[in-house]
Amino acid sequence: MSEHFASIDLGGTNIHGFIADRTGQIAARGKIPTQSHEGPEGVLERIAELVKQMADEACMAPAALGLGMPGLVDMENGLTKFLPNFPGRWSDVPVRKTLEARVDCPVYLLNDARCATLGEQIFGHGREVASMAYFGLGTGVGGGVVLDGHLRLGPDGAASEIGHQTLVPDGPLCGCGNHGCLEALVSGPALTAEGIRLMLSGNAPKLQALVEGDLARVSPATMATAAADGEAAIDDVLQRAAEWLGIAAANVVTTFHPELIVLGGGVSTLGERLARPVQEIIHRRVGMFPATDVRVKCSALGDEAGLYGGLALAFKGGYKNL
Amino acid sequence: MSEHFASIDLGGTNIHGFIADRTGQIAARGKIPTQSHEGPEGVLERIAELVKQMADEACMAPAALGLGMPGLVDMENGLTKFLPNFPGRWSDVPVRKTLEARVDCPVYLLNDARCATLGEQIFGHGREVASMAYFGLGTGVGGGVVLDGHLRLGPDGAASEIGHQTLVPDGPLCGCGNHGCLEALVSGPALTAEGIRLMLSGNAPKLQALVEGDLARVSPATMATAAADGEAAIDDVLQRAAEWLGIAAANVVTTFHPELIVLGGGVSTLGERLARPVQEIIHRRVGMFPATDVRVKCSALGDEAGLYGGLALAFKGGYKNL
Repeated sequence: MSEHFASIDLGGTNIHGFIADRTGQIAARGKIPTQSHEGPEGVLERIAELVKQMADEACMAPAALGLGMPGLVDMENGLTKFLPNFPGRWSDVPVRKTLEARVDCPVYLLNDARCATLGEQIFGHGREVASMAYFGLGTGVGGGVVLDGHLRLGPDGAASEIGHQTLVPDGPLCGCGNHGCLEALVSGPALTAEGIRLMLSGNAPKLQALVEGDLARVSPATMATAAADGEAAIDDVLQRAAEWLGIAAANVVTTFHPELIVLGGGVSTLGERLARPVQEIIHRRVGMFPATDVRVKCSALGDEAGLYGGLALAFKGGYKNL
Repeated sequence: MSEHFASIDLGGTNIHGFIADRTGQIAARGKIPTQSHEGPEGVLERIAELVKQMADEACMAPAALGLGMPGLVDMENGLTKFLPNFPGRWSDVPVRKTLEARVDCPVYLLNDARCATLGEQIFGHGREVASMAYFGLGTGVGGGVVLDGHLRLGPDGAASEIGHQTLVPDGPLCGCGNHGCLEALVSGPALTAEGIRLMLSGNAPKLQALVEGDLARVSPATMATAAADGEAAIDDVLQRAAEWLGIAAANVVTTFHPELIVLGGGVSTLGERLARPVQEIIHRRVGMFPATDVRVKCSALGDEAGLYGGLALAFKGGYKNL
């Protein structure tokens, strides 16, 4: 029997996981509520519980666990440094040590956006290329850069944050504290808020009808439906988002010249509506060399890119081997 | 006697060169007018002539020649692809083959901005670090990125163009064809033009007196003198330039997390007037990780960074070993 590995993606609402082999063949899957209000102890207990549940289901003990963390981690020492969206004191929590004692295998930590990039690199469209960049378009805009087969981590594992390029110096406040980051312009919340503004001001009647006036149902997905139905104001919002994303992608191409840009995360379900203009903008804005060889693709792995990245992290034996 | 190598920096007005050993000890220097109107044949003849002059002066034949080219080159085949500021047909000119026949040693080509970055990496402040980014602030804004000891070249040797990040989507036209690149905002010509605008509109009386009304004497250097003398409008121009450069540098830090940013080229003679605000803006705008470890320094090599890069290119045996 081949070796199996566990992967966990720690999210604000749920903890997702699977156990799989090196080829990505999945032996067990699981999901458990995060309940982050319980703080580090409770959350780590749940992660261990989920790994055990999945190991029981798969009838095999994982050889290692790869863990995607929503924030800044000390990869060398297996500590959390800062989880922006988690209550409780997460600074210097010994995640690796705590979990290794409970799941009885090596545990490796990596920032979740880098994890998703790694997933795309090893199991997604990145398999075909040596250099790529990944934009994870969701509640935030995560990112990752792979150069000549290596994920760029930087000294804190926090480089590659291409979603936090400043595109508008005096632009809207970003969650990172800066103003005018790509994230502040095109994240799910940014698009949703703009949809709501247009709906509340009477400029998006089709969206209004579609969601039956319920603000909570406004999302990039419902906005895409309204735009496809001819809602001009919403179409304009999505076009402008694609333009910003295209500029950010063109900056990445100018800087690295990767072969591939992958658009992932929830917002990327907009699909060709995003990918096509991004590709066009790259060709238009990269002036220093012909960038016609750079392809733009939507993620092959969707929401599971991070889990596949955790799997790769586990079987590669941690960040030093990426 | 130790081995010596030739380095040539091909500029629009002059061809500069030196012959030196691996430690940067210079045995001969030279300069010759480019006369680019004579086209490729004439320019290459002058390069060969300069190398021979220097070899005669140093009484030694160089073991290899490193050549910094102002444009896009095919490093593999030793051809020029596109020299934007040179008249004549420079597409697919066999520079390596032509020169090797005349200077009787291996010839290696590299884009001049990457050459300057390489010079800073091997002989300048970059000696102390594994990862750095270089902005070459002159008539254009060249750039280069060194990651974990390797210069990022990309498939065409044209990556690393961090001076061509789009910072203002609808900004001024850049020489590369894009709009709103850093280069279009802070290059020598951009600053000079803004100084001239303020002078012609009567808003820069101290600058006007300093250059005795001669537009041709307006430059970043004279503007810096006027600003230091209390010319508020010119000081504002320089502060805004530092702000743009700081934003571009912060984007590079967010993306790579290098240890060092080097500011080189003619405009960098503004010195601490540039470096200090750039450092402050990096600290303020990089929100995803503490970037307090990133240092900003003005070039240690000034205008000669490219020549030192050509030297390193020669003794390392070409781009594949960078």
